[in-house]
Amino acid sequence: MGWREKLHEIIYEADTPAGKLFDIILLIAILASIVLVMLESINSFDTKYHTFLNISEWIITILFTLEYIARIISVKKPIRYIFSFYGIIDFLSTVPKYISLILAGTHALIALRALRLLRVFRILKLARYLGASNHLANAIKASRAKIAVFLFAVLIASVIFGTIMYMVEGEENGFTNIPKSVYWCIVTLTTVGFGDIAPATPLGQFIATIIMILGYGIIAVPTGIVSAEYTKATNTDDNGLSDEEINILEEVHLNTQCCANCLEETHRDGAEYCFKCGCKLHHD
Amino acid sequence: MGWREKLHEIIYEADTPAGKLFDIILLIAILASIVLVMLESINSFDTKYHTFLNISEWIITILFTLEYIARIISVKKPIRYIFSFYGIIDFLSTVPKYISLILAGTHALIALRALRLLRVFRILKLARYLGASNHLANAIKASRAKIAVFLFAVLIASVIFGTIMYMVEGEENGFTNIPKSVYWCIVTLTTVGFGDIAPATPLGQFIATIIMILGYGIIAVPTGIVSAEYTKATNTDDNGLSDEEINILEEVHLNTQCCANCLEETHRDGAEYCFKCGCKLHHD
Amino acid sequence: MGWREKLHEIIYEADTPAGKLFDIILLIAILASIVLVMLESINSFDTKYHTFLNISEWIITILFTLEYIARIISVKKPIRYIFSFYGIIDFLSTVPKYISLILAGTHALIALRALRLLRVFRILKLARYLGASNHLANAIKASRAKIAVFLFAVLIASVIFGTIMYMVEGEENGFTNIPKSVYWCIVTLTTVGFGDIAPATPLGQFIATIIMILGYGIIAVPTGIVSAEYTKATNTDDNGLSDEEINILEEVHLNTQCCANCLEETHRDGAEYCFKCGCKLHHD
Amino acid sequence: MGWREKLHEIIYEADTPAGKLFDIILLIAILASIVLVMLESINSFDTKYHTFLNISEWIITILFTLEYIARIISVKKPIRYIFSFYGIIDFLSTVPKYISLILAGTHALIALRALRLLRVFRILKLARYLGASNHLANAIKASRAKIAVFLFAVLIASVIFGTIMYMVEGEENGFTNIPKSVYWCIVTLTTVGFGDIAPATPLGQFIATIIMILGYGIIAVPTGIVSAEYTKATNTDDNGLSDEEINILEEVHLNTQCCANCLEETHRDGAEYCFKCGCKLHHD
Repeated sequence: MGWREKLHEIIYEADTPAGKLFDIILLIAILASIVLVMLESINSFDTKYHTFLNISEWIITILFTLEYIARIISVKKPIRYIFSFYGIIDFLSTVPKYISLILAGTHALIALRALRLLRVFRILKLARYLGASNHLANAIKASRAKIAVFLFAVLIASVIFGTIMYMVEGEENGFTNIPKSVYWCIVTLTTVGFGDIAPATPLGQFIATIIMILGYGIIAVPTGIVSAEYTKATNTDDNGLSDEEINILEEVHLNTQCCANCLEETHRDGAEYCFKCGCKLHHD
Repeated sequence: MGWREKLHEIIYEADTPAGKLFDIILLIAILASIVLVMLESINSFDTKYHTFLNISEWIITILFTLEYIARIISVKKPIRYIFSFYGIIDFLSTVPKYISLILAGTHALIALRALRLLRVFRILKLARYLGASNHLANAIKASRAKIAVFLFAVLIASVIFGTIMYMVEGEENGFTNIPKSVYWCIVTLTTVGFGDIAPATPLGQFIATIIMILGYGIIAVPTGIVSAEYTKATNTDDNGLSDEEINILEEVHLNTQCCANCLEETHRDGAEYCFKCGCKLHHD
Repeated sequence: MGWREKLHEIIYEADTPAGKLFDIILLIAILASIVLVMLESINSFDTKYHTFLNISEWIITILFTLEYIARIISVKKPIRYIFSFYGIIDFLSTVPKYISLILAGTHALIALRALRLLRVFRILKLARYLGASNHLANAIKASRAKIAVFLFAVLIASVIFGTIMYMVEGEENGFTNIPKSVYWCIVTLTTVGFGDIAPATPLGQFIATIIMILGYGIIAVPTGIVSAEYTKATNTDDNGLSDEEINILEEVHLNTQCCANCLEETHRDGAEYCFKCGCKLHHD
Repeated sequence: MGWREKLHEIIYEADTPAGKLFDIILLIAILASIVLVMLESINSFDTKYHTFLNISEWIITILFTLEYIARIISVKKPIRYIFSFYGIIDFLSTVPKYISLILAGTHALIALRALRLLRVFRILKLARYLGASNHLANAIKASRAKIAVFLFAVLIASVIFGTIMYMVEGEENGFTNIPKSVYWCIVTLTTVGFGDIAPATPLGQFIATIIMILGYGIIAVPTGIVSAEYTKATNTDDNGLSDEEINILEEVHLNTQCCANCLEETHRDGAEYCFKCGCKLHHD
């Protein structure tokens, strides 16, 4: 096994001690970078500890850059990684700091680093934990289309009610234009209710009442869909297998091997070749 | 097949390439008209691009007028279309612009065009997609009466609590009259909580607490009804047929034929005559 | 059948044309009285139409007084009616107007008339409609105790978090005392969020975040209970009887007879004697 | 049975009349202490009745101190009680008052006494009542992990959206720093919506719309999980036993015996020795 395979195993997998250590360090670095960006955004804190924050951020940036380079050289097809979702995020979380040396103002882009938090899901394999026996995932998948159409209906209702409210309340009560009126309508339908804009005329308040009761009534629909689909998903695989047995069956995929060629991650335990691209997987 | 049948097929159906193209153009025109109305309502935008907006709107209005005339002449009983729900909306979305030439101020009515968005449901046949196997539609139908009575109970509670809050808080704290007090009560019960009016006396805050906990407790009821009815609807048709098979059975109706006489839309695939009025359907 | 029995049948039952007419007139009178009280509370309206409102209210008050007297004399045990829930409300909705002749200021009590709205449920027999096959009623009954304990837990959490927020935020940020702080906490936990009080210190906002996420998580519990109990209630009576058959079985009680002695209302259709007190029921 | 065993039975158990009386007095004392702390926090009330409040509080404090000492001496291993969860709370609810004699300012800590409210659950054995047949407890236990991961996802989404809103809205619209922006994002996602901070730019309002619709859509997930798990928990033990029978089986544990050695509370009815530490339980 060459050094590139070794590096790939450390960075992309978590079956070896080195791989686990790498994941833990990466996790800490990501969280630290988020905390740094947050602290820096607090003016009183930034003016006090500017030098400390700046140095810490350079350290994090260099670490992320090294990780980015290591990820590129350890993969067989670097282009695939560079243009993958995580590849772009990894790039965007290092570059702004370098550009800020030349151009002022681009520094704010460093906040894009928050997107790296998404990698936490990958590291902790949370998605898998969540859907231990895939019930929830199946329920959400089954409800997705229905909820999307439902939310689309909510949007159309918001446009119609928003336009009506604009005509009823007018500019003097904060409904300065239709987009703002639609925004208010969504704020109300979703029961958020900021109160930055609120109807002032009796007719406007009456229509607002209808919108709110509508919102109250329809919040039941997506909830009903998810819970019914989840109940269904839970029942359908009760085909004689206990939850334990199902877990064992599914744990076949629960090793952390990751193909160096196509970055596919859900391999069988004894697999010697990637089931997707046929590339050889490495073993100790 | 005469030109009127041809026109009917293009406008009301979507099985031919021309029919599909018409639907797509109509969809774009509706969305464009909504965007135009929105942009026009933004003052800063309107003063800058007034001429552009005005011309665009005349184009849209003329297109809609042509469509309206085409719809009337291609149908056998135009009166039926003119006084149908969509017929009235189509009329209301063209007329205000013409009246605005003579009378000022009626221009605001152009916002009624937002109601044309409802046609999006028809074009995309969303309602059918939503209830692929009609489970959700059945669940909502089964819960409708119960949720209506439930919302009625919420309304009565709002009137009673609203009156109490008016007596407790009085005009100095924003509860200037009972209708406003009832409005506040609905805002609170539905957990929207704008905060434009908020209780200021300790007793008023205590009653508000009761209203909120009540609202929190009863939000569970409609949700419970919908999810239980949906579960029930999903279970009852598990009569040996898989979801796939049910879909096939239902897709019998999934062609887009529309009777030129009575505008009925849910015909069987091989149907030669309208099942509702007996009028001959046309085929290629 | 004496005139008292006749009067009882008209006022308390709805099987005869006269009884139905009485119910409809009562319904209209109640709604009219509510609208009157509401209009009177609007200052601008009251100053304009004061005489009209005053006269209308006297008419309603006299009608309600006559109804109250009729109810008392047509019942065998007037004391029972007078001290029943509805008896007290009926009394409270007439008396304040008379007192307002002698004492000023008591007029506001007339708003108590809103409580008469509860009789709408009785007139429309809504409760029965709601629970056609009693599923919902059973589900709510089964969940009541659990939801009560749950709401009690929410209350205790509010007291504890409210006290903590009072210590953290202090008087300068609107948390002037612990009861107000607890009130804010309930406003937040129930996701109402008026915004009349809002945390201003970073620590306070952090604790608020915990409260909100907690509130978001626990809103699932009562909903879950109701929907599960409702599903259960719907399933348990699936003992070979269709919903139609169950309705027929239950409609045995759906006549409107009301015992003149104990005011019990759920009699069997052919019943000659009240099942509760043994008093003879009248028939045409 | 020595006086220490007797004391243990009175304080920790509720099977004897003396034990029940002790529990009721304790319950009243806790509620009184909470009311006292609340009243004291209201400035106008505190200045008026300062002496009365101070004396009442000293009485409560001395009662709690006596109870604390009694709890220590009646238990075989006092250390275990002192460092138990309730032991620490009991200590914290007496000490601040004594310290306030020497040090000023520590008085505010007396509000920690609100935590004693948690003992209400123990006294009323509410937790047991709640989960009569343990369905709800099981449902919550089964959903806990999934809801936790779900809330974690909500948190990550809040950090990402919060950062974006900070970049879009900036300091001039109240989004002064990223932590505050994240706080706003959680306020919005949970549909609380205080309105102390609200987006002012069109782009910010557009992103807020996405966040709200997202929050509206995902509120369905935890609810769906709990209700499905609860339905499942209710169904799985339908193994021929009625709810009544299950209650009888479970009531085996429903005596209030409490081991004087290890404070374990769920003993069988006829148990002579603690099942956990083997220590002899006392009987009358």
